[in-house]
Amino acid sequence: MANTIGKMFSVTSFGSSHGKAVGAVIDGCPANLELNTEDIQKELDKRKPGTSGVTTPRKEEDKVQILSGIFEGKTDGTPITGVVYNNNQHSKDYSMFKNTPRPSHGDYGWMSKYGNYDYNGGGRGSGRITIGHVIAGAIAKKLLKTKNIEIVSQVIQIGDIMAHSNDFDTVKENVEKNSVRCGDLEAAKAMEELILSKKQEGDSIGGIVETVAVGVPAGLGEPVFERLDGDLARILMNINAVKGVEIGFGFDVATSCASEINDEYYIEDNKIYTSTNSSGGIIGGISNGMPIISRIAVKPTPSISKCQKSVNLEKMEAEDITIQGRHDPCICPRATVVAQSSVAIVLADHMIRSGYIHPSNLEI
Amino acid sequence: MANTIGKMFSVTSFGSSHGKAVGAVIDGCPANLELNTEDIQKELDKRKPGTSGVTTPRKEEDKVQILSGIFEGKTDGTPITGVVYNNNQHSKDYSMFKNTPRPSHGDYGWMSKYGNYDYNGGGRGSGRITIGHVIAGAIAKKLLKTKNIEIVSQVIQIGDIMAHSNDFDTVKENVEKNSVRCGDLEAAKAMEELILSKKQEGDSIGGIVETVAVGVPAGLGEPVFERLDGDLARILMNINAVKGVEIGFGFDVATSCASEINDEYYIEDNKIYTSTNSSGGIIGGISNGMPIISRIAVKPTPSISKCQKSVNLEKMEAEDITIQGRHDPCICPRATVVAQSSVAIVLADHMIRSGYIHPSNLEI
Amino acid sequence: MANTIGKMFSVTSFGSSHGKAVGAVIDGCPANLELNTEDIQKELDKRKPGTSGVTTPRKEEDKVQILSGIFEGKTDGTPITGVVYNNNQHSKDYSMFKNTPRPSHGDYGWMSKYGNYDYNGGGRGSGRITIGHVIAGAIAKKLLKTKNIEIVSQVIQIGDIMAHSNDFDTVKENVEKNSVRCGDLEAAKAMEELILSKKQEGDSIGGIVETVAVGVPAGLGEPVFERLDGDLARILMNINAVKGVEIGFGFDVATSCASEINDEYYIEDNKIYTSTNSSGGIIGGISNGMPIISRIAVKPTPSISKCQKSVNLEKMEAEDITIQGRHDPCICPRATVVAQSSVAIVLADHMIRSGYIHPSNLEI
Amino acid sequence: MANTIGKMFSVTSFGSSHGKAVGAVIDGCPANLELNTEDIQKELDKRKPGTSGVTTPRKEEDKVQILSGIFEGKTDGTPITGVVYNNNQHSKDYSMFKNTPRPSHGDYGWMSKYGNYDYNGGGRGSGRITIGHVIAGAIAKKLLKTKNIEIVSQVIQIGDIMAHSNDFDTVKENVEKNSVRCGDLEAAKAMEELILSKKQEGDSIGGIVETVAVGVPAGLGEPVFERLDGDLARILMNINAVKGVEIGFGFDVATSCASEINDEYYIEDNKIYTSTNSSGGIIGGISNGMPIISRIAVKPTPSISKCQKSVNLEKMEAEDITIQGRHDPCICPRATVVAQSSVAIVLADHMIRSGYIHPSNLEI
Repeated sequence: MANTIGKMFSVTSFGSSHGKAVGAVIDGCPANLELNTEDIQKELDKRKPGTSGVTTPRKEEDKVQILSGIFEGKTDGTPITGVVYNNNQHSKDYSMFKNTPRPSHGDYGWMSKYGNYDYNGGGRGSGRITIGHVIAGAIAKKLLKTKNIEIVSQVIQIGDIMAHSNDFDTVKENVEKNSVRCGDLEAAKAMEELILSKKQEGDSIGGIVETVAVGVPAGLGEPVFERLDGDLARILMNINAVKGVEIGFGFDVATSCASEINDEYYIEDNKIYTSTNSSGGIIGGISNGMPIISRIAVKPTPSISKCQKSVNLEKMEAEDITIQGRHDPCICPRATVVAQSSVAIVLADHMIRSGYIHPSNLEI
Repeated sequence: MANTIGKMFSVTSFGSSHGKAVGAVIDGCPANLELNTEDIQKELDKRKPGTSGVTTPRKEEDKVQILSGIFEGKTDGTPITGVVYNNNQHSKDYSMFKNTPRPSHGDYGWMSKYGNYDYNGGGRGSGRITIGHVIAGAIAKKLLKTKNIEIVSQVIQIGDIMAHSNDFDTVKENVEKNSVRCGDLEAAKAMEELILSKKQEGDSIGGIVETVAVGVPAGLGEPVFERLDGDLARILMNINAVKGVEIGFGFDVATSCASEINDEYYIEDNKIYTSTNSSGGIIGGISNGMPIISRIAVKPTPSISKCQKSVNLEKMEAEDITIQGRHDPCICPRATVVAQSSVAIVLADHMIRSGYIHPSNLEI
Repeated sequence: MANTIGKMFSVTSFGSSHGKAVGAVIDGCPANLELNTEDIQKELDKRKPGTSGVTTPRKEEDKVQILSGIFEGKTDGTPITGVVYNNNQHSKDYSMFKNTPRPSHGDYGWMSKYGNYDYNGGGRGSGRITIGHVIAGAIAKKLLKTKNIEIVSQVIQIGDIMAHSNDFDTVKENVEKNSVRCGDLEAAKAMEELILSKKQEGDSIGGIVETVAVGVPAGLGEPVFERLDGDLARILMNINAVKGVEIGFGFDVATSCASEINDEYYIEDNKIYTSTNSSGGIIGGISNGMPIISRIAVKPTPSISKCQKSVNLEKMEAEDITIQGRHDPCICPRATVVAQSSVAIVLADHMIRSGYIHPSNLEI
Repeated sequence: MANTIGKMFSVTSFGSSHGKAVGAVIDGCPANLELNTEDIQKELDKRKPGTSGVTTPRKEEDKVQILSGIFEGKTDGTPITGVVYNNNQHSKDYSMFKNTPRPSHGDYGWMSKYGNYDYNGGGRGSGRITIGHVIAGAIAKKLLKTKNIEIVSQVIQIGDIMAHSNDFDTVKENVEKNSVRCGDLEAAKAMEELILSKKQEGDSIGGIVETVAVGVPAGLGEPVFERLDGDLARILMNINAVKGVEIGFGFDVATSCASEINDEYYIEDNKIYTSTNSSGGIIGGISNGMPIISRIAVKPTPSISKCQKSVNLEKMEAEDITIQGRHDPCICPRATVVAQSSVAIVLADHMIRSGYIHPSNLEI
């Protein structure tokens, strides 16, 4: 079940970059959630490449079809299958990589593990397979919305350029206004310039994506091995190109004293809050009712047009490699959509597991 | 199965800080691994508190008993149960926390989720429950050793003090020579001083623990949802007090260009290597044969003797809290043992899943 | 993951009788298995209705498309997705069942559990969804064939008519020669007549399907909760209309003494055999190298044209029901294909889990 | 996780017949269930051998200790660990079986799979390990009782002697009154005589155990692979010596027409019932509110004192075997306790999964 994640709300992903289709089967969504193709399509459109200079110029329509799981406009408790057929494939770009793995790209791992590897467009190692995540995430988001949970992801850093922090609603609004999907419009401009300059050099650049979920009740997460932060860390680290995951204060805790970062409690309107949120909404693996804050470190796209050293695995000799193709000079903007989808999947699963959403019928 | 982790090599953890016992059931260890109590005890002793000024002065013997799974000195393929009975408990220290959650401690989450919460010593939210991790990790380490895989964890940062990097064998040796379990003996001294000064202030300090595994073959990890990095991120984030996880270059990828950090391939003695290892031994979720490098950010112990604001959940009113008890002024030194245990558990699981270790009998 | 089964070789089923499609995602099939559409289609054709008087006259083409998981004619270790689009649907037949559950049919359970239920053709409760099982089973069978494991299912009883037992190869040949899929051609004739007479009466009849797997090595099955017989019992009982599962001597053990049915060991050509096989190839949950024998009791199709008492769930009052539609007068013939698919899925999973088939690459 | 079963309410079993202990870790029981040692002990006492002529004369105290999971007399949502230390072991009885597997006993499977096998008393293949099932079942039963679900198992057949059927309460009362645990006191006498005569002959006899659960609401079970009947079939077939499982009419459906056995609906007091219950309370994999009825076929104890043919696996030559030891002449009486425990475990799991029992706190 390597391609399935989640216990009560689970996602099975399938497909590859240059095969017939990519998609996902979502199992465990309770019945009676209103859901149509458009709910999913609008999320896919945010992830779609070819919409600006900072992403790959590949034009993919990425039109989703729902094959199962909806009856009379609502989910019916059976598996929901969403499929996107692949259209715009340039397989000729890739034949040269058949025996020559691209540095820091998944090629070598797939080749050595499976023997038979679809090297075209990275096959199943391609970022394109996150279409399945986004399909599932769109459903999860809609499900969470019924309980007033909302999620937004934004790029908060590209290279040395950092975004100023903004409140949830401003970020939600601003990410739709710039191609980088940054919540700070000024920083967004600088980020865009930096990305384009790297693109010009035939290089690529990394960054950080932050995801905030508001409205999450206290009590999600089951210690000690199905903690909410552990489940988030897994699904986020599983996203292509991610090399680090943080919750709340993250790595800054290393240089902090408890007296500086402990989140003290207070009461307002008969509810419990913490005056700070360096815990990022999760303590001891369980949500505490404050916003859930996670961040991922996204590495620069490994496919660059600069010449790199590699090896020919058939001849077992050194071989230089230059990658043409059409690649994102920065993965972060599109990764925001995958990050928020991933967080939504984990939260939907835990909301059901913790008794906040009925497992089979939303109307109960 | 919230307290079970692993697919083929799995660990079920049980027990609480001030209950009768803590322990773990390890299922899926193949038969014919030589194993005795001492193999486990020596790992537990590294985690044992009360051995220096930088850990809690609680004296716990932490003697393990094996209840099942060994026949004639070897594993027999059945579940291995290891138990440590609790002895040195000061339950009187904790009654004041019954209704008043300690800031940034698991209390509030456990109370709100389960209603009935053993607040004594943090109950199951206590760091003490990682004894189960260490029991399981000791078995995993011994199993991995049969395939020449070795793992070592060290403290690489406390507050602003950072260790210089050293080679694997030096680190392995040095961590046993200082109370901080740092691989750089000079830095260790400064770290120890910093921790003791924080202890003096009634405060605590965070840090970073790095784990390196050498000898891991290429091909571990199953994309897209059971990637090796995702599984590592989950088990590491699930450790108490961890707020961040990195693989390889980690968050430094955010400020890097691909041309700077891509790991280029070369051949030596007919084997494939990369000339750098910013990937930390994992690309595309699959190991590439290079050392597996992970880091965790460990927050300062939330239990400090300084006065903090909290709330009384019964009376629903503000209540200040001062925590006496006996607490580690820094979690990192003992967390190293839990980190390497956790990494060992994941690697053992994946070595079996990937066909490198026979699932039922080591002699096949 | 209610629609996913299997640990290393896993199947996720989706779709409904009158929705757009039915199908399955098969995850964990190692790379380098030669596989094409025809391998799957030929199994689906055996299950296809409308081919004789003893099955429903619905004509369904049931043409499978493979959406993912094959590269250059071989599996590549990624999920294999097989889809059959639904064509021949008579939704008008079913509107009368919207609020009136058919006796002994899944309707009532689905209605009460999910609220929103696709009553057309039984929705996901339809036997039609076993197309997913057959797709997965075809792949499992091909995988097992590489290790010389073969499986055949036959009808051995319909009403009071029982088949004489025959050797494996004869059964394999004979089941293709008669519409009942019985291994005894004479009994097959009598069974066919009995079924047609029941059809004439507007009634239906039950029976027993036996599945034999030969070539299975000793050592499959992991006690105590993932025993081979337990896993077979689950997947077989999960088939629509099955009310009983037996291994080997089955319920006849109730009237037996150990001295009569114990399987004694002997040696031939330096291999271990048992002189009888009342254990059905599994003792203590683990295969012993003898043929694996299972049987399922299949109830008569609950949809019959005779008038039956039911209730209107909306009005909450009694309401008689007469079911027209086009239904199999006996489920057994088509159930043989589902039974052998199910057994194949479990065996494929356990062959990988037990180290007999490499988990990622058949060529290793 | 071969020794773990259940998704939300899960059981991890450990231990062996002649090792230090047997037991189980129960994970997922919600907090605030009143539970003490006596609740478990009284169930273990029913399973305890040495209490009559129809069971083994081994005297085992089987005293359970709870190591974790209870706080102030109630469950606290953390794993509950129950352990029984082994005392009355006659290891000398077994050395002769080291290389000579007993016919129809698990020996050979364990030897061939694991290589290192604790042949003493059958090791983990022993019926003794069902103590773990009973510990878990006792907790599950107490949990179900809070929702008015009750379960009782009885022996309904030994050899050719069958019990007359009785209502639930009579059966519950009667099983405690006779050593065979049959609900029909007259049949019980005849069964006892038959068993004792087989014991006299150095032989053993099989039988059938029926389990009825009342009070189970409609809607448990998740098609298509986590159906309630499939989950019951798995856990029941996983019990030692079980060779068949039936739900409701079971194998009798083979000789039935739908018009004879379909369960028609009616309304009483505004609730839905069926006038018959040949479905055994489960249709289409989902419970329908009627009593859940299952039956298992239990083979005669394979360990008999009559001489049998076996082989010496070391010398690879024929070797006759005569088994002395102390064995049950019929497994059925004690199997009733294991059967009802197993059914309770599955129902507890599904009650949580279906939203009828809160997953973390009974008081919510």
